Amino acid sequence: MASIFTRIINREIPSYTVAETEYFYAFLDINPLMKGHTLVIPKIEVDYIFDLDDDIYTGLFSFAKKVSHSIRSVIPCERIGIVVMGMEVPHAHIHLIPINKMDDMNFANEKLQLSGEEFEEIAQRIRSKF
Amino acid sequence: MASIFTRIINREIPSYTVAETEYFYAFLDINPLMKGHTLVIPKIEVDYIFDLDDDIYTGLFSFAKKVSHSIRSVIPCERIGIVVMGMEVPHAHIHLIPINKMDDMNFANEKLQLSGEEFEEIAQRIRSKF
Repeated sequence: MASIFTRIINREIPSYTVAETEYFYAFLDINPLMKGHTLVIPKIEVDYIFDLDDDIYTGLFSFAKKVSHSIRSVIPCERIGIVVMGMEVPHAHIHLIPINKMDDMNFANEKLQLSGEEFEEIAQRIRSKF
Repeated sequence: MASIFTRIINREIPSYTVAETEYFYAFLDINPLMKGHTLVIPKIEVDYIFDLDDDIYTGLFSFAKKVSHSIRSVIPCERIGIVVMGMEVPHAHIHLIPINKMDDMNFANEKLQLSGEEFEEIAQRIRSKF
């Protein structure tokens, strides 16, 4: 069965698109730790990030670098942090999280509650800088 | 002044070496969340990981991929997680953390207390697989 992320890429499930290329997709995490918290994924469905072919693997991180600059240009923060756990969805994904201090990246923290309009406004602003 | 990581690379400060190439270095985190918790760094001293030149940036993540396979081949775990925060030391570094569940990567957790012999034994085993 297709992963939830493959269904998002295929627009079977809506998402707040941040950036897209032939091989990669970026969209807002709907349970964000911080405003601008973004998920970056390869379109190919591989569970474990280190199992990706070298080309897709390095391409994914290059794409994430570009997305991080877009996020940072519109979301006030000290820097963009990176987290890859892979316990939640069996489709490799990179969390890009705007942070001001270490604890901003703590997944045990309560998630932000944002409206659809807020998500769309954030996504649009990041997208405009990609 | 040279960062603590540059001083580690230059062997002015000892570390438990896991892997080394011309441009990159990997060594055990001495405040590990899990056994095998490793720091992967570029030899060039750049604070923010997304400021690295593209070649060094992708090379760093390729090196981390190879190191992750070495760690996973000797440390029992479900997978290797990735964290980049960059709040601690102004020299870009990737945390590679063997994890079995999401909370294993929580930096608020108490760190493991290991002896020098235990660190050296872990480093030697990972190094032998690189």
